[in-house]
Amino acid sequence: MAVRVAVAGASGYAGGEALRLLAGHPEVEIGAVTGNSNAGQALGALQPHLLPLADRVLEPTTPEVLAGHDVVFLALPHGQSAAVAEQLGEDVLVVDMGADFRLNDAAAWERFYGSPHAGTWPYGLPELPGGRAALEGSRRIAVPGCYPTAVSLALFPAYAAALAETEAVVVAASGTSGAGKAPKPHLLGSEVMGSMTPYGVGGAHRHTPEMVQNLSAVAGGPVSVSFTPTLAPMPRGILATCSAKARPGVTAADVRTAYRKAYDDEPFVRLLPEGQWPATASVYGSNAVHVQVVLDETAGRVVAISAIDNLTKGTAGGAVQSMNIALGLPEATGLPLTGIAP
Amino acid sequence: MAVRVAVAGASGYAGGEALRLLAGHPEVEIGAVTGNSNAGQALGALQPHLLPLADRVLEPTTPEVLAGHDVVFLALPHGQSAAVAEQLGEDVLVVDMGADFRLNDAAAWERFYGSPHAGTWPYGLPELPGGRAALEGSRRIAVPGCYPTAVSLALFPAYAAALAETEAVVVAASGTSGAGKAPKPHLLGSEVMGSMTPYGVGGAHRHTPEMVQNLSAVAGGPVSVSFTPTLAPMPRGILATCSAKARPGVTAADVRTAYRKAYDDEPFVRLLPEGQWPATASVYGSNAVHVQVVLDETAGRVVAISAIDNLTKGTAGGAVQSMNIALGLPEATGLPLTGIAP
Amino acid sequence: MAVRVAVAGASGYAGGEALRLLAGHPEVEIGAVTGNSNAGQALGALQPHLLPLADRVLEPTTPEVLAGHDVVFLALPHGQSAAVAEQLGEDVLVVDMGADFRLNDAAAWERFYGSPHAGTWPYGLPELPGGRAALEGSRRIAVPGCYPTAVSLALFPAYAAALAETEAVVVAASGTSGAGKAPKPHLLGSEVMGSMTPYGVGGAHRHTPEMVQNLSAVAGGPVSVSFTPTLAPMPRGILATCSAKARPGVTAADVRTAYRKAYDDEPFVRLLPEGQWPATASVYGSNAVHVQVVLDETAGRVVAISAIDNLTKGTAGGAVQSMNIALGLPEATGLPLTGIAP
Amino acid sequence: MAVRVAVAGASGYAGGEALRLLAGHPEVEIGAVTGNSNAGQALGALQPHLLPLADRVLEPTTPEVLAGHDVVFLALPHGQSAAVAEQLGEDVLVVDMGADFRLNDAAAWERFYGSPHAGTWPYGLPELPGGRAALEGSRRIAVPGCYPTAVSLALFPAYAAALAETEAVVVAASGTSGAGKAPKPHLLGSEVMGSMTPYGVGGAHRHTPEMVQNLSAVAGGPVSVSFTPTLAPMPRGILATCSAKARPGVTAADVRTAYRKAYDDEPFVRLLPEGQWPATASVYGSNAVHVQVVLDETAGRVVAISAIDNLTKGTAGGAVQSMNIALGLPEATGLPLTGIAP
Repeated sequence: MAVRVAVAGASGYAGGEALRLLAGHPEVEIGAVTGNSNAGQALGALQPHLLPLADRVLEPTTPEVLAGHDVVFLALPHGQSAAVAEQLGEDVLVVDMGADFRLNDAAAWERFYGSPHAGTWPYGLPELPGGRAALEGSRRIAVPGCYPTAVSLALFPAYAAALAETEAVVVAASGTSGAGKAPKPHLLGSEVMGSMTPYGVGGAHRHTPEMVQNLSAVAGGPVSVSFTPTLAPMPRGILATCSAKARPGVTAADVRTAYRKAYDDEPFVRLLPEGQWPATASVYGSNAVHVQVVLDETAGRVVAISAIDNLTKGTAGGAVQSMNIALGLPEATGLPLTGIAP
Repeated sequence: MAVRVAVAGASGYAGGEALRLLAGHPEVEIGAVTGNSNAGQALGALQPHLLPLADRVLEPTTPEVLAGHDVVFLALPHGQSAAVAEQLGEDVLVVDMGADFRLNDAAAWERFYGSPHAGTWPYGLPELPGGRAALEGSRRIAVPGCYPTAVSLALFPAYAAALAETEAVVVAASGTSGAGKAPKPHLLGSEVMGSMTPYGVGGAHRHTPEMVQNLSAVAGGPVSVSFTPTLAPMPRGILATCSAKARPGVTAADVRTAYRKAYDDEPFVRLLPEGQWPATASVYGSNAVHVQVVLDETAGRVVAISAIDNLTKGTAGGAVQSMNIALGLPEATGLPLTGIAP
Repeated sequence: MAVRVAVAGASGYAGGEALRLLAGHPEVEIGAVTGNSNAGQALGALQPHLLPLADRVLEPTTPEVLAGHDVVFLALPHGQSAAVAEQLGEDVLVVDMGADFRLNDAAAWERFYGSPHAGTWPYGLPELPGGRAALEGSRRIAVPGCYPTAVSLALFPAYAAALAETEAVVVAASGTSGAGKAPKPHLLGSEVMGSMTPYGVGGAHRHTPEMVQNLSAVAGGPVSVSFTPTLAPMPRGILATCSAKARPGVTAADVRTAYRKAYDDEPFVRLLPEGQWPATASVYGSNAVHVQVVLDETAGRVVAISAIDNLTKGTAGGAVQSMNIALGLPEATGLPLTGIAP
Repeated sequence: MAVRVAVAGASGYAGGEALRLLAGHPEVEIGAVTGNSNAGQALGALQPHLLPLADRVLEPTTPEVLAGHDVVFLALPHGQSAAVAEQLGEDVLVVDMGADFRLNDAAAWERFYGSPHAGTWPYGLPELPGGRAALEGSRRIAVPGCYPTAVSLALFPAYAAALAETEAVVVAASGTSGAGKAPKPHLLGSEVMGSMTPYGVGGAHRHTPEMVQNLSAVAGGPVSVSFTPTLAPMPRGILATCSAKARPGVTAADVRTAYRKAYDDEPFVRLLPEGQWPATASVYGSNAVHVQVVLDETAGRVVAISAIDNLTKGTAGGAVQSMNIALGLPEATGLPLTGIAP
C-alpha cells in the first residue's frame, strides 16, 4: 500500500524539489500540497516543471488539510515548523526541511536564529557515524542544511580518522536557489549572472553552528569552522572547499584510506578516482555526492572538496533518503543517482 | 526479461543522455557502451554524472561488440550510421540519433549533407499524424533532429487544421549542447556565456529540409520555412518561436481548438493554459514539450512557441519513446515527465 | 566649460548606465543624482560599480534639486517624465529615457500604456533618415526603446530601399536588465539562468507601435510588425532577428548595397563582413551596433539581424549620442566603441 | 607625441584586452598587432568587439614587425617571452603579460613550469610596498598573474601590519577567460555553465609560488599559502577568499586600520564600507579592486576578500597601469575605474 505524503510549503524551491522526487517515488502517493499566500492556485502556474502535478491546487497549510497522511514534509520558513508538527500525531512521520530542529545547542540556536529553541530531532544525514541508526523507525526528522551536508561529508572522514587539526577553513560556492524564491534585488538574474560574491562572512552564517556540531561530534571534541559562503552564477549546486592542518605524520595514503573506508560502501557518495575533481554539474538534480581529497604536503593541509545539488542531496533528496530509512524502505528508493549533464 | 541495449558513441552528449535515460528504464539492461577515440577509458572519466555506470569501460564500435543486443542506439557522426546498421541483424532494433535516415528527399540530403543518401527509416516523432503507426514493430528508427522536433510540434496543429498559410517563419534558440562536445573556439564558455548569436542563417541550417518535410506532409502541400537558429547562453533547451500568416477568417477560438485537439491526449505535450508561456527551464532534463499558441490579430499571424530539452525530447528521450513504441512497451516507460527547476 | 548634467532616477539600471557613460564623458560634469525611495543613500551602496561616484548621495527628485543644470537625464517610471520636464526651463536639455514622448499616435499610446498621451519629442535615433537633423539644437529628446533601436536599425535599410514587403516578423532576445531592477519572482537568477522564455507575445509588447512607427515612416506607408520578445539568460544585450518577404526581383546584391549605403558612414553601426554574424557579447558595454543581412532565396525573405547592448546603445548610450548632437558636440564624444569581451 | 605600442599575441584574451585598453588610452598609438597561427587575418574576425581596430591585419611576431615601437606588450605562451625580448632594444619598454619573469626563485620556476628560469623583471603590482619605485623608469615589466594580483592585494595589508600568522588559506573563483582561448573540452560552454569545479588543488597551481613570494616579502619571512582555484560559470572575474589565523591580541579595529592605511590613497583599490562585500560584477571590465576584511572572532581568523577583473586589473589593466608608471604618465591614464553592471 502506498505511503501517503503531504508537502506543506509547496510553492517554494524546497517544496517543489520534494514534489519532483516524490512524484517519481514508486512507494509514494502524493496527498495534500499546501501553501499560504498561494493557496488556491494551480501547481502548474507556480511549478510549471512538475507536469504530472500541474492540475493540483494548493490548499492552505492547516491541520485539517495535513491530517490523514503517513508522512508530512515541511518546507516552511524558519520558526514555523514546531507549531505545525505539534498538531500532527506522533505516528505521523514529520520531515522538517527547515532549520528548527537541527541544533542541540539552544544557545547557539538563539544566537543565530533569534527565537526560542524548539528542540532537537533525529538528524537526517545517514552517512555520518551512527546516522542511520538514529533515523530507523523515527517519526521526526530534521533535514540538514545544504551547506552542512556538503561540508560534513567533505570533512568528517578526516576527523573520524584523527587526521586533521581542529580548526577547519571552509569556502563554499552555492547556486542561487539556496537563497529561496522570495524576490530580493540582489538575487535578480541581472545581478547574479556573471558575478561571484560572498555573504555572511566571518562566522555570521546560520549554518556555521550546524557544521561545528557535526564535526565536533565526529572528532570527539570541539572543532572550529571558519566558514565563507559565496553566491555563484548558477541555479543549483554547492561546491565546498574545506581544509584543515594535517596532524603530524599524516601521509597521503592515510588520507586516502580514511576516505575509502568512509565511502566505499555508501550508495550516494562517490570518492572520485585520484586526479578527478568534483563538479557541481555532475550532480545536477541527483542525490549523489562527489568527493575528492588530497594532502597538500607543502602547506601541510588536508584539502577535501565535495559537490552536491543543494536542493536534492542538500534538501529534498536528503529528506527522502531519511524518510526511506525511517519507514524501512530501501534507502535509495526513488532517488536519482545520475546528474543531468551537460 | 530485460531488453538488452547497446549505445554506440557513448562519450558524446547524445550518447550520454541516452545512457542516463536507459539507466533509469525499468525494462532495460545496458550492454555494450562504445566509443572510438575514447575506447578503453572508464565512463566515469568521460561522463562523471552517470554514477551507476562510472566503472564501465568504453569498447570500440565494432560488429562484435555490438552483437547480441536487442536494441542498438547509434550516436555517431553523420554518415557513419549506415555502415554500422548494415552489420546488425534485421531483428535488432537500430535507433539512429544521427541524421542519416531522416530525409525522404535524396536531393535535399545531398545538398545539405554533401554525401550520398543512405535511405529513409521510420521517423521517430510519434505525435505527428500517423507517427505512432509508423513506429509500431519497426526495427529501424530515425530519431528526428532537435530543432525539427520543437518546430514540428509547435506548428503542425496549425497546418493539420488548415489555419495557416504555407510560409512559416521560425527563430529558435538552442543551448550549446546541441553543438556537441567537440571543442571549438566559438563554443568555449568564455565566448557563449552572456552572448546570443545566430548561425546557419538564410536557409543554410541542415535541419531546414526536415522541418519542411514534416510540415508539408501535414499540410498536404509544400510549406516553406525561413529558419534562423541562435545559440543561447545555456547548456540545454530549445525555444522555438514559430509563426505563419493566419488564413482568412481564422479566429483565436479556431486556433485554440486545433491545438487542444492535437495535444489533449498526448502524454508528453502540454498545451499551457492561456497566458502562460513555455520556458526551457521547465522541461530541463524532461521528455516533456510545453506549447503555447496565440493569434496576433493586428499582424494577422498565428504565433506558436514550444520549449523542449534538446537532448531529452529533442534526441535521446525521443529515441527512447520511439523504442518503447517499437517494442510494444508503454510509451512513457522510463521517461521523465518532470523537469529540473529552478 | 563643462556641461553640467543631472540624472533623475539614478538607482536603476538606465540611470546607472547613464552615470557610467557620463562619468567618462570629457565635456560633462555630473551634478545632481536623484532617486526617490533611495534618497539619502550613497551611490556606492546602490551602484557599486561606479567607483568614482561612490560617495555621492542620492537627493530627492525635486525641481529645486534639478535646477541649475544644462542637461537633465530622466530615468523615471513611465508617465512621470512630463511633470518633471514641465518644471525645467525650455533652455534646459531634457533627455527622457522613458517611453512618454516616443509615440506620435496618441491612440496607440493610450492603448499600450493606459494613460493620457503626453506629447511627442524629437526622437533620439540619429541613424534613421533625417534623424540627426531632428536632434540638432533640440532641448527635448525622447530616447527610443531598446527593442525599437535594435529592430529599426536592422530593418530600416530594407524599407528605405524598397526591398521588402510590409509585413515584418521579429523575434528578439533580451538580457534581463531590460526588465529593470524591481525584484519580481520571474526575474530571479534562479529562474532566468538556463532558461529562454517569451513574453508579451502576439502584439502585446509596448515597443510594438514604436517599431511600426519607425519602419512605416521609412517605408512611406504602413508596415506591420509581428514582434515576439524573449528573455535570455544574460544580463545585457539584444539580438533582434528580423525578416520580411523580399519584393519580386530583389537580389542579394541589392540587399548588400542597400545596407552598405545605410551604414558605411555611420560611426556606431558596423555592417559585418559577409559570413560573420552579430553576437551580443561583441557589443557588451559599447554603443556599437553590429548588423548582418542575407537574402534567403529559398524562403524568399530578407533576414536582417542586429546586436546591441540594451543599456548602452539601447538606452543610455543612445541618449548620450543624441545629447551630443543636440549640444553640437562631436557625436561620438565619451561613447565606447569597443565591447568588453570575452 | 604619442607613445607607439605593439601587441604581440593579439588574438588571445590577454592581447585582446590590452588592445581594448590601449585603444582608449589618450597617449597611445597602436602600432603592430601580431599573431602566429592567425597572421594574415583581420582583427575584426578574431576580436569582433574591437570595432575601431576591425580592419587591422595580424602580422607575424618577428623582430622586424616589432621594431620601431616605444612599448611592446607580450601576450605569448609561457617560455616564449625571453627570446622575443632579447631582440628588442634596451630602450624599448617590454611589458610581459606571461609568467616568464615573475619569480625570483629559479628552483620554484623550474618546479612549476618545467623549463629553465629566464630571469626576473620589475614586478608590475604598484600597490605593494615599494611597488611603484621598482617600476619608475623601468624598461622591463613582469605583469603579475591574475590570482596573485587578487590574493596579494587581499592579504598584504594584514602581513604588512603583522596581524596574521604565516599560514594563509586561499580559495579563489575565476571566470573561464583565465584559462585562455585554446579550445579544450572542459572549457566548453556546455561544461562550464551551471558548474563550479576546482583544479590545480593541493599546491599544484603555478600561481602559488608567486603568492608566496609576494606575501613573504611583505611579512619579512616565509608565508605559506594553501591555494585552491575554482572555475566559475562566468567569463571574467576573480573572487579571492583569503584567511589566516589572527595573531594574539589583534582586534577588529587593528584590522580595519591596517587596510585603511594600505588603501585610502590607492586610486584603484576600494576598501568597501563595513558590511558591503566585493562582487566580481562590480569590477567587470574595470581596473578597480574591491576589498573587504573582517575579523572572525569565533574562529580567530582574519578573512579578507577581493574582487578583480582577471583580464583588466589581473592582466592587461595592470600592465597598462605599470606602463604608465614606467613612462612617467599619470598612473590612471586610459584605465577604466567603473565596471559594467549589471
